[in-house]
Amino acid sequence: MLIMMSAQATEEEVANVMAHVRDRGYQPIELPGADRLAIGVLGTNPVTIRDAVVALPGVVAAIPVSKPYKLVGREWHPHASVVRVGGVPIGDGAFAVAAGPCAVESEQQLVDTARQVKAAGASLLRGGAYKPRSSPYSFRGLGAPGLEHLRRARELTGLPIVTEVLTPGDVEAVAGAADMLQVGTRNAQNFSLLEAVGEAGRPVLLKRGLSNTIEEWLLSAEYVVAHGNPDVVLCERGIRTFETATRNTLDLSAVPVVRALSHLPVIVDPSHATGHRHLVPSMALAAVAAGADGLLIEVHPSPDEALSDGPQSLTFEQFSDLMEDVRRLTRALQHEIVAGPSQASR
Amino acid sequence: MLIMMSAQATEEEVANVMAHVRDRGYQPIELPGADRLAIGVLGTNPVTIRDAVVALPGVVAAIPVSKPYKLVGREWHPHASVVRVGGVPIGDGAFAVAAGPCAVESEQQLVDTARQVKAAGASLLRGGAYKPRSSPYSFRGLGAPGLEHLRRARELTGLPIVTEVLTPGDVEAVAGAADMLQVGTRNAQNFSLLEAVGEAGRPVLLKRGLSNTIEEWLLSAEYVVAHGNPDVVLCERGIRTFETATRNTLDLSAVPVVRALSHLPVIVDPSHATGHRHLVPSMALAAVAAGADGLLIEVHPSPDEALSDGPQSLTFEQFSDLMEDVRRLTRALQHEIVAGPSQASR
Amino acid sequence: MLIMMSAQATEEEVANVMAHVRDRGYQPIELPGADRLAIGVLGTNPVTIRDAVVALPGVVAAIPVSKPYKLVGREWHPHASVVRVGGVPIGDGAFAVAAGPCAVESEQQLVDTARQVKAAGASLLRGGAYKPRSSPYSFRGLGAPGLEHLRRARELTGLPIVTEVLTPGDVEAVAGAADMLQVGTRNAQNFSLLEAVGEAGRPVLLKRGLSNTIEEWLLSAEYVVAHGNPDVVLCERGIRTFETATRNTLDLSAVPVVRALSHLPVIVDPSHATGHRHLVPSMALAAVAAGADGLLIEVHPSPDEALSDGPQSLTFEQFSDLMEDVRRLTRALQHEIVAGPSQASR
Amino acid sequence: MLIMMSAQATEEEVANVMAHVRDRGYQPIELPGADRLAIGVLGTNPVTIRDAVVALPGVVAAIPVSKPYKLVGREWHPHASVVRVGGVPIGDGAFAVAAGPCAVESEQQLVDTARQVKAAGASLLRGGAYKPRSSPYSFRGLGAPGLEHLRRARELTGLPIVTEVLTPGDVEAVAGAADMLQVGTRNAQNFSLLEAVGEAGRPVLLKRGLSNTIEEWLLSAEYVVAHGNPDVVLCERGIRTFETATRNTLDLSAVPVVRALSHLPVIVDPSHATGHRHLVPSMALAAVAAGADGLLIEVHPSPDEALSDGPQSLTFEQFSDLMEDVRRLTRALQHEIVAGPSQASR
Repeated sequence: MLIMMSAQATEEEVANVMAHVRDRGYQPIELPGADRLAIGVLGTNPVTIRDAVVALPGVVAAIPVSKPYKLVGREWHPHASVVRVGGVPIGDGAFAVAAGPCAVESEQQLVDTARQVKAAGASLLRGGAYKPRSSPYSFRGLGAPGLEHLRRARELTGLPIVTEVLTPGDVEAVAGAADMLQVGTRNAQNFSLLEAVGEAGRPVLLKRGLSNTIEEWLLSAEYVVAHGNPDVVLCERGIRTFETATRNTLDLSAVPVVRALSHLPVIVDPSHATGHRHLVPSMALAAVAAGADGLLIEVHPSPDEALSDGPQSLTFEQFSDLMEDVRRLTRALQHEIVAGPSQASR
Repeated sequence: MLIMMSAQATEEEVANVMAHVRDRGYQPIELPGADRLAIGVLGTNPVTIRDAVVALPGVVAAIPVSKPYKLVGREWHPHASVVRVGGVPIGDGAFAVAAGPCAVESEQQLVDTARQVKAAGASLLRGGAYKPRSSPYSFRGLGAPGLEHLRRARELTGLPIVTEVLTPGDVEAVAGAADMLQVGTRNAQNFSLLEAVGEAGRPVLLKRGLSNTIEEWLLSAEYVVAHGNPDVVLCERGIRTFETATRNTLDLSAVPVVRALSHLPVIVDPSHATGHRHLVPSMALAAVAAGADGLLIEVHPSPDEALSDGPQSLTFEQFSDLMEDVRRLTRALQHEIVAGPSQASR
Repeated sequence: MLIMMSAQATEEEVANVMAHVRDRGYQPIELPGADRLAIGVLGTNPVTIRDAVVALPGVVAAIPVSKPYKLVGREWHPHASVVRVGGVPIGDGAFAVAAGPCAVESEQQLVDTARQVKAAGASLLRGGAYKPRSSPYSFRGLGAPGLEHLRRARELTGLPIVTEVLTPGDVEAVAGAADMLQVGTRNAQNFSLLEAVGEAGRPVLLKRGLSNTIEEWLLSAEYVVAHGNPDVVLCERGIRTFETATRNTLDLSAVPVVRALSHLPVIVDPSHATGHRHLVPSMALAAVAAGADGLLIEVHPSPDEALSDGPQSLTFEQFSDLMEDVRRLTRALQHEIVAGPSQASR
Repeated sequence: MLIMMSAQATEEEVANVMAHVRDRGYQPIELPGADRLAIGVLGTNPVTIRDAVVALPGVVAAIPVSKPYKLVGREWHPHASVVRVGGVPIGDGAFAVAAGPCAVESEQQLVDTARQVKAAGASLLRGGAYKPRSSPYSFRGLGAPGLEHLRRARELTGLPIVTEVLTPGDVEAVAGAADMLQVGTRNAQNFSLLEAVGEAGRPVLLKRGLSNTIEEWLLSAEYVVAHGNPDVVLCERGIRTFETATRNTLDLSAVPVVRALSHLPVIVDPSHATGHRHLVPSMALAAVAAGADGLLIEVHPSPDEALSDGPQSLTFEQFSDLMEDVRRLTRALQHEIVAGPSQASR
């Protein structure tokens, strides 16, 4: 950590800061600059005294030198991780597409969709039984019967299931039906939920919070890994900005940034990010080109009738066309798309 | 709702939209414009068909006319609400200050603080037993023993207690100790938690989410009220923007905006918003002048030693000075600061 | 335009609004809703009375129905435009790469770079003689001698020149040396400059303002076109958000959004957007996949010695590798990269 | 400056960075940390080699220690500055209100407004003869005749004039009519204009750019002062965020932040920030309480008929009421409002 003193700091103030650092077991070192003094702090994890130091008279700032995450960081774990979801690998060259409706609406809707997306080349089935909605008056998912439909769809198609869990009390039930637990954007800093999924023994799909920095997102992943679950896949799904032409602003630069900082796989959800069906294919292809390890795509048998997120869902035909383009692109980029397993396998 | 058609929409597309609206039980009405057609939709709650309509060929946009919240809106409830917390009224002219440490660290720290802030004029004691922290390695609160300290502080000083609850599983325990349940900024759209505090029989302090619009914030309040709890106080605490000189950007305009849209009281937390002690007094006074119904201020016996948020906590003396200024200002503006009750009363 | 009345609006207020609309030459039409009245306004360009209407008692909002731009919009000009820069076409399938240093530093630096980027496949040379810098103490470009170097580089390599102009007083001089005038992000709403380049008889590269919505960006293009210059190429270069891992947040969704709204070509500048060399290649490829009509890439013979933007500049070798990948991708996507003309031709 | 090396940096990389720093005339000093090495850089203005250093292998970041501005910073000029505009002091306890219409529409409109705002207690008259508008089709001001009206209004009322200048070519003409030159939010980083007003011999009102950090804003002020003009008043007028309930988000915290960083006066424009008349009074009072040195308020004889910004303009009566409240507040806070001079004096 580096402590920057004010240009007007008195000798007494400097001495006080030096003493303070020493009292707390760290070694201060004076670094005179052209117009002010800086003080380096040596020792293990000096950031723990940062708040106290910043408040001392004469101190302008205290800048941490180390990254705040360890388990998910690439510095200590240089090789890319592969996360397996019901037999489907994601990461380190393995590219996977999860597709399906925003919300599970009926067994037939789900099974039809599962068959179609599998035929088109998806390797995972997504669908929400529990839906977070900003209004209490919107459709919030079928709940437990939705989980039953997901189980049935896996049984019939062999596609592993990705579904969202909203609260620690539901983790056990959802983990009983799902191959991968999704933590949504509004729960990205719901630390109780992160701990619960950290202990659930299922891979986790961690969406980036609407206004989370990449560092905060990685710290949320650190919560899950620190609770015993190394199988985290990160999902960029758009951040909140001033632009209103899209639902959110898809931050595709986050893909190469995350790959540089972390060994965890990172996939992209262009459906929620853009909020408009006609923008999904181009942003899906852009995500592939940016180096994403997979995609999360909303597909619905009849988007105009969807109970949730219809305007951003692709039809079966649109999804099938998109998968053609994705394959063309991954071939050009020499990636490999992972096919879904022929049998459900957990 | 108003449906805007493309300037190039064909007659067939228009007819299709009209039919679609009629099929779903609403009445469409054509509104020819200079360069395009709009279609008005009459009937109850037409927004439920918005997603379906937006996806039809030839449709450019569908604009809702009604507000999405009802119970918290001022249109249906014109008079300002008063929320009582352990006997202390907030709202409709009653101004209340909640003060105390970010985190409860020990009985003595808390009781000392409670006595000092009461003497300075605070009417509520705030302090966290459960702390949400972006890193799993930061101090996360004392938990249950912290609740005991809060109980003790109330017993000794009579100040009602405001404390945060992080997850539905803790609501019962926290409600047993607290006079008011705080839902934090990272949980502002944790809908399971909003429902749980809606059923807990205690007033709720609902912080605005870091990237929540005012409309989303009011919808989160609507969750609590729709679950049976009308006693919600809103708390503006800064939103996330590009500016880095402050921890967040305090959106004080939210105070008059909320007062126009909602009958619920709204208070302001300048400590978390600014993140710097030297900015707290001026922003606290600005909040009073903007018409806030109260303040939430972090105070610590020794901020340099605080385990959390030290740099933004006021000392006892600074808080006492601030309360002098607040009183001067509320007098000038002809508000009344509410004194704490002499006895704990729930 | 649609006027939304308050749910509590009186009959008198409604009558007043109706009269007001009629007095100004428009036709009002009542649209009763479930919980409030809306008033449609028919006639040409009703948005001119919007401000007046919004201020009337009982009015909640007035929503324009038409787009505020005409000349650059696709509604009135459905076919994609092609802009020719010194013989190089951009748009409607023609893909062009402009490359070169952020700042022109010397004739040799520029000519070396021009030869290398041409050999690698670039079709335009970029380089700044006048540099906008947030600090008055930073290097701000060579000025007129820089223009000379640009002329010389074109003479020797045949590459058309793209260079920035900062102020109306410089437009004539810069247009004398350049094939395309760049308006930078900080000048995106410098309307005097937009008018001046509208009259300069050279194609314009219009960067998106750091905090401009896509609609505002298109309106800035409308300024240029309305002053007689139809040859505008839009350039997405990142917007300002809360994320600090990248210099700005590249909003790649703007590419398909612009293509849907406007007939103008749109290219992408991943160098300024990301601010980090190691992020440039993946975001350049993502831009291609998103459907961009071209790229703007910073290249420097020795980035470590650059007087400006070194950390985001590619070396010759990195640029050459990137161009290989871009060609592979455009082939897969069935686009065509435009080669630079063998002779300078204006 | 502090250079942070990667945790995996090799000895060779470290040696290379050390050599690089020395070669450029600075003194490097090694600062071993728990998990990585940092290198301090001593010498004058080391930030000039920052870009070069960041690009070296093994370097993670380079953090400047000094502020990038000097002339406007409080570190080197601790006492608050007072800027005099036609005899009216602003800053260091002197509080001034500039009021008037957004756009000058006619002599009568302007003179009527000037008389009324003077009677209500304003000390400066604001009004735009040249208006920046995002659409080329909006009313853009009367131009030169507008300047005549401003001159006439000063002659009749004695109020000094504040008016906007859009481009360097207009500076001379505008400075001939105005007592203070306003640089608007869209020109806050129009460096050619900043230089031109720096040489114009008139005080400058520098609005904060819509997406400018406070540091960038102070650097823009530094441009003006570095060109010989010390008389700069900063004006906070809202920044661009995701919130849509207000036109922009008024960042009132900028007031105490600027006061801590700079000796220049800072005033607040709640009219443009909020965009809604009913929000202006509360935010004006909040600005006073936050410690602003003045206000800029839009006032119009008949806001419903205004050619620009009607919805946010106060009527004469509303402005007069606001001034009453402002006086009450400044008395309570022991500030002094400056009265307009009885005679025009420059």
